[in-house]
Amino acid sequence: MTTVDNGVNVQALLDARQALKGAPEAAQFTWQAKSRWSNGVHSETTVQKFFGLGADQAHKSAHTFDADHPEVFAAEDNGITPIEYLLVGLAACLTAGVASVAQNRGIQLRSVESTVEGQHDIRGILGVDSDVRNGFNDIKVTFHIDADASKEEIEALVAQSQKRSAVFDALTNPTDVTVEVA
Amino acid sequence: MTTVDNGVNVQALLDARQALKGAPEAAQFTWQAKSRWSNGVHSETTVQKFFGLGADQAHKSAHTFDADHPEVFAAEDNGITPIEYLLVGLAACLTAGVASVAQNRGIQLRSVESTVEGQHDIRGILGVDSDVRNGFNDIKVTFHIDADASKEEIEALVAQSQKRSAVFDALTNPTDVTVEVA
Repeated sequence: MTTVDNGVNVQALLDARQALKGAPEAAQFTWQAKSRWSNGVHSETTVQKFFGLGADQAHKSAHTFDADHPEVFAAEDNGITPIEYLLVGLAACLTAGVASVAQNRGIQLRSVESTVEGQHDIRGILGVDSDVRNGFNDIKVTFHIDADASKEEIEALVAQSQKRSAVFDALTNPTDVTVEVA
Repeated sequence: MTTVDNGVNVQALLDARQALKGAPEAAQFTWQAKSRWSNGVHSETTVQKFFGLGADQAHKSAHTFDADHPEVFAAEDNGITPIEYLLVGLAACLTAGVASVAQNRGIQLRSVESTVEGQHDIRGILGVDSDVRNGFNDIKVTFHIDADASKEEIEALVAQSQKRSAVFDALTNPTDVTVEVA
């Protein structure tokens, strides 16, 4: 009998997988963010509601996030830059995956830390050179993991986490984004 | 003489564009996030340092972001989900762009609000169906903008913001992401 406990309810996830096999409509989620311009390039974005399992859902509380540009861009630095939020999401998604896969494989984690670095040539967004893209050139994630497992088992955890990561997919593959003015 | 003031220092951005034309190495930025697993699928990610203009830089303060899964995923909902952070970044980036372009075009903004919705079939991440992708199916952004401008001018602001948006590019085009275990 395993005493491994990473705090992930893997049985619930396996049950959900089984249940959603016969109910694909329940698997259709809509995540939502509502944003409001403050001043300059400073905005506040709130996340609380979402839709899924066929019904309106909500996080226990609303979470509001400031975004701004740093002082070296002649702004007020009231929050992190918009593009840094992508790195937050990537780190969090891969980390959640590592914990979930470890639980499923009976591997006890002691600590999981990661550093995510996005290389960005800002000549794109400034319009200096139209051959330079606006987004990241590339992103590198480095994990430091302490667990009851071999180096190979830990690398396999991280590989499986990537394979099932929503954010890793969203960044490495294109998504259709429609922007409208109401 | 214009009295338009959206709080964006457009002259500084135009000066930066000019300066970086002759100094592409100064335009190479590295954005960074450092993440730590808490328990279950809950993590805390901190953003403060970055590199750019040839030197180490930092936001005025460190910003820490909780990510978790909601209770309908049998988790504790200690924060928004990782994939929702992508919507926060997208909303903030497009909004900053609208403010900057409006300033440059002499258009006074009164309010800019947006709703971002990401459609997500969670059968991908749960491993129910390998034909379903892990990330968003698609994303829709709806702006409500009150400004001293015609509907056409406002739509042109939003279009130009998209064209120069770092996050819009990062989501609509693929980026190479490397994941390593140290």
